[in-house]
Amino acid sequence: MKIQNENKEIVELSHGGGGKRMDQLIGFISKKIGIRNSSEDLVGPEETDDSAVIKIRNTSNTLVLTTDSHTIDPVFFKGGNIGDLAVAGTINDLIVMGAKPLYLTLGMIIEEGFTFSDLGRIAETIGNLCKKTGVRIVAGDTKVMPRGMLSSIVLNTSGVGVLIREEPIKDSNAKPGDIIIVTGTIGDHGTSLLSLREGLQFDTELESDVTPLWPALEKIVRDPRIHSMKDMTRGGFASATNEIAVKSGVCLEINEEKIPMRPEAKAICEILGLEIMEISCEGRAIIIADPSAEQDIIQELRKHPETKDARIIGKVISEPKKKVLIKTEIGGKRILDKPFGEPIPRVC
Amino acid sequence: MKIQNENKEIVELSHGGGGKRMDQLIGFISKKIGIRNSSEDLVGPEETDDSAVIKIRNTSNTLVLTTDSHTIDPVFFKGGNIGDLAVAGTINDLIVMGAKPLYLTLGMIIEEGFTFSDLGRIAETIGNLCKKTGVRIVAGDTKVMPRGMLSSIVLNTSGVGVLIREEPIKDSNAKPGDIIIVTGTIGDHGTSLLSLREGLQFDTELESDVTPLWPALEKIVRDPRIHSMKDMTRGGFASATNEIAVKSGVCLEINEEKIPMRPEAKAICEILGLEIMEISCEGRAIIIADPSAEQDIIQELRKHPETKDARIIGKVISEPKKKVLIKTEIGGKRILDKPFGEPIPRVC
Repeated sequence: MKIQNENKEIVELSHGGGGKRMDQLIGFISKKIGIRNSSEDLVGPEETDDSAVIKIRNTSNTLVLTTDSHTIDPVFFKGGNIGDLAVAGTINDLIVMGAKPLYLTLGMIIEEGFTFSDLGRIAETIGNLCKKTGVRIVAGDTKVMPRGMLSSIVLNTSGVGVLIREEPIKDSNAKPGDIIIVTGTIGDHGTSLLSLREGLQFDTELESDVTPLWPALEKIVRDPRIHSMKDMTRGGFASATNEIAVKSGVCLEINEEKIPMRPEAKAICEILGLEIMEISCEGRAIIIADPSAEQDIIQELRKHPETKDARIIGKVISEPKKKVLIKTEIGGKRILDKPFGEPIPRVC
Repeated sequence: MKIQNENKEIVELSHGGGGKRMDQLIGFISKKIGIRNSSEDLVGPEETDDSAVIKIRNTSNTLVLTTDSHTIDPVFFKGGNIGDLAVAGTINDLIVMGAKPLYLTLGMIIEEGFTFSDLGRIAETIGNLCKKTGVRIVAGDTKVMPRGMLSSIVLNTSGVGVLIREEPIKDSNAKPGDIIIVTGTIGDHGTSLLSLREGLQFDTELESDVTPLWPALEKIVRDPRIHSMKDMTRGGFASATNEIAVKSGVCLEINEEKIPMRPEAKAICEILGLEIMEISCEGRAIIIADPSAEQDIIQELRKHPETKDARIIGKVISEPKKKVLIKTEIGGKRILDKPFGEPIPRVC
């Protein structure tokens, strides 16, 4: 029942069927991830029972829950793979609400014929990121779809965290006078993926920014002067800022030249006629905070490689309500709309 | 931005892109499900923030977590649709551990071109089942995959519950002397799906047994005399009983003629050369309990339409360890193995 030669072995339909072969598939994935029970588990993931049962210790009763599916094409890209995306995306959604991420569930939907070698690489990535962030995979599910019914692999990760501050950090809580911070360059993930797909070549190769922002943002998340926070995924900077502006009923006034961008990412967008502010990132957040927190936040962000390029890019004002206003270097102003859709499909 | 004519409208790639069109898709789904914030939400699903933040009241701190992906083909079948499967499957996985199901997350991965009409029917089913069981969808995610990259729709549901008894109900806790109960006819789901696919006709049409077993099993789950419990999904009765036998290190001795089966389901299996005990159910459970609980359990199960056909089908013995032993009416004995894989792909 062991995988003999994982470079050549492929996933077959029977690996999804609830029998001995599925046990083999689950065993393979679990080993690569490094699944282990913890002392807080009454029923842990190693037991492959119907659910995990966990006695949470020393925490409050306020749960934070999220879910994300990942359909990226290609599955392996410069700077990561779909496993990075799944763990980082879900963890980041918990953090920006003010939560410490604790548990993930992992649903894998695999196309018949997918290699165990690629599956193993993805599972190892997931395991490494879990170790790095202290998050545990506590429940999982595998399905196999017939060849041609699914392109390669889709992951779903759901996340459970606990609130580590008095109030959650809500999209709707930005206030006039607040400062606006972005934790790093925008658009790297989408443009690096696009350059890979289109076969564009640049002197410096772009990499995806995909990364979990825990523990980098832990201290910041605990600061009550943080009013609003959002990771930028599909629809990028434009979607995230517009969500905050609309839900808070305020205007986000952004100085365009302050937004950190890689020249290669900018160039790709210019060549292809894309708006970089609409391109997805997978390891960047927007932070809206009381101005008194400015120095503390920037100093803290500079300490972590994931957020070292953080910059203040603007401020929250009252009018025009529910709008994102971009101020250009030469004094122009324009409204940045929420995009119609992500300009590049299947980036996450 | 409204869906004008949902019978004709189809999901397009841009509906998955994180922009205004995705808001439209999410709005459509939320309305059909009937998504609403609750008073325990600090950040509820109506706010479409990055995560839901929930203050659990009057509960212990023992969480029960599970996840399930659903890839069934066809999406609509006699007795239900993929929405029933998603809600019931996840809720049942929580119940059989001894949990009260509380929250679901919902990930929808939709093929470009899927109709809003079908999507609406699925979402309404999900909403109705949530209402019936008192479970809430608290977080969601939608992705759209290009035409031909996914066949129709895949759902992922993750579930959160709280333990409502001292100890969880584990696969590994069956004890010699225990009675074995099955809550209803086996193999209905898989065989009904198969007859639909193969175009077989029978006088009485088979229906899927898909149903959430909450609140039907609530009282039983609270009884400490319940030692082990499992819902039968992929691999059916054979997989579920073997899991318990192996993990508990006991023998499950089953009287074949006691197992409730529909004649139509048996007939389909005979025609197609399938073992009915390997065929999936989606609303049936196996219960292993102390013999003193027999009358209480059977009386309680008979009260609920979902479990009214419950029967005692055998007992747990010591030897041969880790085996399921089938006793036939004429006195024969055979070992029921864990199947190699589900005989029918994509039934759940």
